Amino acid sequence: MPIVPAYAAPAAGALLEPSSVELRELGAHDVLIDVRFTGLCHTDIHLTRDEWGPGMYPMVPGHEIAGIVAAVGSEVTAHQVGDRVGVGCLVDSCGECERCLAGQEQQCLRGATDTYNAIGRDGRVTYGGYAKQVVVTEAFVLRIPDALPLDVAAPLLCAGITTYSPLQRWNAGPGKKVAVVGLGGVGHMAVKIAHAMGAEITVLSQTLGKREDGLRLGAADYRATSDAATFTELAGRFDLILSTVSAPIDLGAYLGLLHAEGTMVMVGIPDEPLPLHAFSLIAGNRALAGSMIGGIAETQEMLDFCAEHGLGAEIETVAATDINDSYTRMLRSDVRYRFVLDASTI
Amino acid sequence: MPIVPAYAAPAAGALLEPSSVELRELGAHDVLIDVRFTGLCHTDIHLTRDEWGPGMYPMVPGHEIAGIVAAVGSEVTAHQVGDRVGVGCLVDSCGECERCLAGQEQQCLRGATDTYNAIGRDGRVTYGGYAKQVVVTEAFVLRIPDALPLDVAAPLLCAGITTYSPLQRWNAGPGKKVAVVGLGGVGHMAVKIAHAMGAEITVLSQTLGKREDGLRLGAADYRATSDAATFTELAGRFDLILSTVSAPIDLGAYLGLLHAEGTMVMVGIPDEPLPLHAFSLIAGNRALAGSMIGGIAETQEMLDFCAEHGLGAEIETVAATDINDSYTRMLRSDVRYRFVLDASTI
Repeated sequence: MPIVPAYAAPAAGALLEPSSVELRELGAHDVLIDVRFTGLCHTDIHLTRDEWGPGMYPMVPGHEIAGIVAAVGSEVTAHQVGDRVGVGCLVDSCGECERCLAGQEQQCLRGATDTYNAIGRDGRVTYGGYAKQVVVTEAFVLRIPDALPLDVAAPLLCAGITTYSPLQRWNAGPGKKVAVVGLGGVGHMAVKIAHAMGAEITVLSQTLGKREDGLRLGAADYRATSDAATFTELAGRFDLILSTVSAPIDLGAYLGLLHAEGTMVMVGIPDEPLPLHAFSLIAGNRALAGSMIGGIAETQEMLDFCAEHGLGAEIETVAATDINDSYTRMLRSDVRYRFVLDASTI
Repeated sequence: MPIVPAYAAPAAGALLEPSSVELRELGAHDVLIDVRFTGLCHTDIHLTRDEWGPGMYPMVPGHEIAGIVAAVGSEVTAHQVGDRVGVGCLVDSCGECERCLAGQEQQCLRGATDTYNAIGRDGRVTYGGYAKQVVVTEAFVLRIPDALPLDVAAPLLCAGITTYSPLQRWNAGPGKKVAVVGLGGVGHMAVKIAHAMGAEITVLSQTLGKREDGLRLGAADYRATSDAATFTELAGRFDLILSTVSAPIDLGAYLGLLHAEGTMVMVGIPDEPLPLHAFSLIAGNRALAGSMIGGIAETQEMLDFCAEHGLGAEIETVAATDINDSYTRMLRSDVRYRFVLDASTI
């Protein structure tokens, strides 16, 4: 079985370092992918630091993978050598349960297989895209349209679908006023995608530091949440609020910004439970929802949508030796707006 | 101006006692209603005891009013003397704002006028249905179909619309599994209405004490929330959960009972904020919503639906002298399932 260079966290909380991954033999339905670019996602930090439950080490993170097909198994029909492809947060699911059949593989009732730090259905630990190559079963390999450069496409595999899915489900579009909370790796994609869907966007950020960027990316308005006036002036304004932040927020204050029958969707995950007064929802028949990535077909739809509208992530490309520093910068929100690892440097 | 007998709380927290109300002169669009029955709602207890902010005393509660039209103003077209009518939680709104024009008068942007303990648009304090007569502007007077006896119709004006509206909005119906949390005045109407809509109902109650009633009212299953097994056995089961309780509940535990993309709607209002972990919503793309009564047209639709399906509240009729004892019994959930005041005893 081929062994390929990778970067791994050797233990919980350890710095990432050069390592290697033993790939599985190419099965009949497998696709071998030469990784070109992998986005650095906040989840990578949480998992390598063991903040979300027991991690398996050495851990090779990376679930925003863009690359080129290097080989295919004997029965692969969907992809060919040389194809531009992507892999997101999952690499397998049962394919038979009601959620899989509904195209929501990420909700597989038997448990979808995460791209890394998971045990696959073959009993092997999964390793992600901080590696020269990955092997993924064809049904979980996405096509990246030619119009999308691979580097700016990589972050779409997580940050893109994380925002596209709730924006679609909760009807962002022409005539709708949408607030995006937080202008980071996920938030900036929310602005781009919601703008392309035709909605009127307001960014709600702690400060006005990234205001110019927000307006350039498609926002019509940009307000500081550190300014109490924001919450009075915008009361009742929005049809939809998408919160991309993982810092604790005052749910009641944000819900008060919703129009009657409006919905606030959380995609960022604060560590602690947040206090919620039922009346914040009952007044005006509001809803608070959650959303986690999306199914494979919807992820492909998102990639096609982004290609059609010329939307990629705003990125800073980094080398493998920069990963640890990049994590440090991500933790202080010092990135505009996604680090992408150049896999040629691994 | 006519003065009519009523029962009022003379001061915050005082027992209700015989009193009187001075009605306004019948305006061109006003309807004078002989009150026949008024439901006793938990809100009446909160407000007479000043638990929800400053009350105005003497306070005449009652917003589940059923009666007969006694007189109409010169320009009233919708109602005639002798008509069977009802009045719910609101008696006026601006009629011009976007919410009023959308038929959601209860969300009037200038503030709907509550049936009692409010200042009307004419500057007068409003008094409710614990009175021999009320005067209400015609647009806020509902028609009670002949098929519905007035006594069992009265509670529909609050408990009925409170449950009908979210059951409609969140698609209770054939093929849908709906859980109703709490089998009280509101909860028992939720069971009846959701059953008539064609949904499969499970009641989630603290104990199995009212199980037989629940099944008779239309539930297919009845589980005790004091039994931890309920939350494991029913995990992921429901499309919709309607919580009618005002006791604090473990939101995460209930959200775990939802199917992917399911919705939990709160109509009961716990006094304190409840801790909510975002992951409870994010896993499975779930939603937590609130709902407060409904608009006038929807309330009429609900009454027509209840008449068509033969649905009234399960009631115990009480005399005016029983009001205080009834409140005491309501506070210990000792009523099956709604007290209705016989206005002939006032």
